[in-house]
Amino acid sequence: MKIGYLGPKGTFSFQVAKKYYKSAELVEFNTILEVIIGLKNEEIDEAVVPIENSIQGGVTETIDAIIENDGIFVNKEIKMKINQNLLANKKYKLNEIKELYSHPQAIAQCRKYIDQNLKNAKIIKVSSTAFAAKEITQKDYCACIANISCLEEYGLQLLGKNIQDNDFNTTKFWILSKREINNGNKMSLIFSTKHKPGALYQVLGVFNKNQINLTKIESRPAKTKLGEYIFLVDLDINENINKVMQELNNECNYLKVLGRYEEI
Amino acid sequence: MKIGYLGPKGTFSFQVAKKYYKSAELVEFNTILEVIIGLKNEEIDEAVVPIENSIQGGVTETIDAIIENDGIFVNKEIKMKINQNLLANKKYKLNEIKELYSHPQAIAQCRKYIDQNLKNAKIIKVSSTAFAAKEITQKDYCACIANISCLEEYGLQLLGKNIQDNDFNTTKFWILSKREINNGNKMSLIFSTKHKPGALYQVLGVFNKNQINLTKIESRPAKTKLGEYIFLVDLDINENINKVMQELNNECNYLKVLGRYEEI
Repeated sequence: MKIGYLGPKGTFSFQVAKKYYKSAELVEFNTILEVIIGLKNEEIDEAVVPIENSIQGGVTETIDAIIENDGIFVNKEIKMKINQNLLANKKYKLNEIKELYSHPQAIAQCRKYIDQNLKNAKIIKVSSTAFAAKEITQKDYCACIANISCLEEYGLQLLGKNIQDNDFNTTKFWILSKREINNGNKMSLIFSTKHKPGALYQVLGVFNKNQINLTKIESRPAKTKLGEYIFLVDLDINENINKVMQELNNECNYLKVLGRYEEI
Repeated sequence: MKIGYLGPKGTFSFQVAKKYYKSAELVEFNTILEVIIGLKNEEIDEAVVPIENSIQGGVTETIDAIIENDGIFVNKEIKMKINQNLLANKKYKLNEIKELYSHPQAIAQCRKYIDQNLKNAKIIKVSSTAFAAKEITQKDYCACIANISCLEEYGLQLLGKNIQDNDFNTTKFWILSKREINNGNKMSLIFSTKHKPGALYQVLGVFNKNQINLTKIESRPAKTKLGEYIFLVDLDINENINKVMQELNNECNYLKVLGRYEEI
């Protein structure tokens, strides 16, 4: 079985993939969109993608790629605590660091630490924390923010451990495939509302009167004009779910089930 | 009067600031958070910040900075159509470009164009489109995605005009100050709901029964744990607004008015 993830080796997605799949072949991609298109084109059987972080919020690249590509289903949810670290190729002092490489979300997660300790560093945003680690292996006076597995993977030195601003830093990952497994107590949907005042309230009313608890609601632009949105909701299933789906079909302009699944 | 914006010269924020303030002194900052802290510390009198893009959605750096810093109010809303362009220091062919510099949102806005035309280019994400333009002035075989004003500002050549994937590309900017002007037909609020099922539905019910139309709702993580959110809503004011505010005070755990303002 082939599993796609946002590479290179050493990303948080890679860590999740290694932990969840003991013996599968891991296939790296350069962007989250490429992971999902790889799944659609059957280059891989399943994919591990980050969907939400407790500090940065929804991973919009993942959400938009799932909205735009039909036939992709959520099979499992996995949560992972995120610890960020400052790594470099030698044991520099913090004020010697001239360039800091990392993914924009990791930089945002360590904003206070950077402001206090790395005032002389130019910030260079790259596509993943592991790519940042790979990038600095030959660069003197440069550092990266990455997960601890990159220390060994790329032969780096530890300059700062657990440097994230907020210790409640958890990322939720989804395992995606082209199969709808339809099993578990969670469900994710995307929908757009009718164009009338109170339309979102009407849709939420369907969940409310059927005692369905929404655990998350997120809006994404419909990409047509300002003020039109697609909503992504996560919910806990109960015995009313089939009735809810019928009622939602009447209330929504557009409705798609991303999957029924469980957390592992 | 001093006006802060996300620099350097040539950003979309700079363009808006120049258009709106004919004779004020424009002060550039390196990040949106620094603009807002500059306003809080009275280094500047007003600030121009991007709040939402029709394709990329809410500008989370702006939203989070406003949530975290009290005493900052929305005074005006300005919409601007966003056109992106491919610029370089010489007239290269597209397949000769080895590195592409831009802001992550601009890269996302031109994803299809990049995938089709710039397959050989390594993508380097920087803090603003104008910074990207400044960065490549001396770099051969490098290009940037930036607004057309950078052509003249940095003496560059035009390789591709209006290269964004989607022509409905508009950004909404807010003019912020420490004064609450309390005038206009729009209002923005942030709130968190009580911790019980259906809590968001109850809050939206307050707007609905008072015929208040929400033009936007966006969730941001509360940064405590996964599944707790702060909501940002924009609404059109009507004669019930004072009653609405009283009822919201009862329904919400936390409620803050970001401002009553108008679009110009």
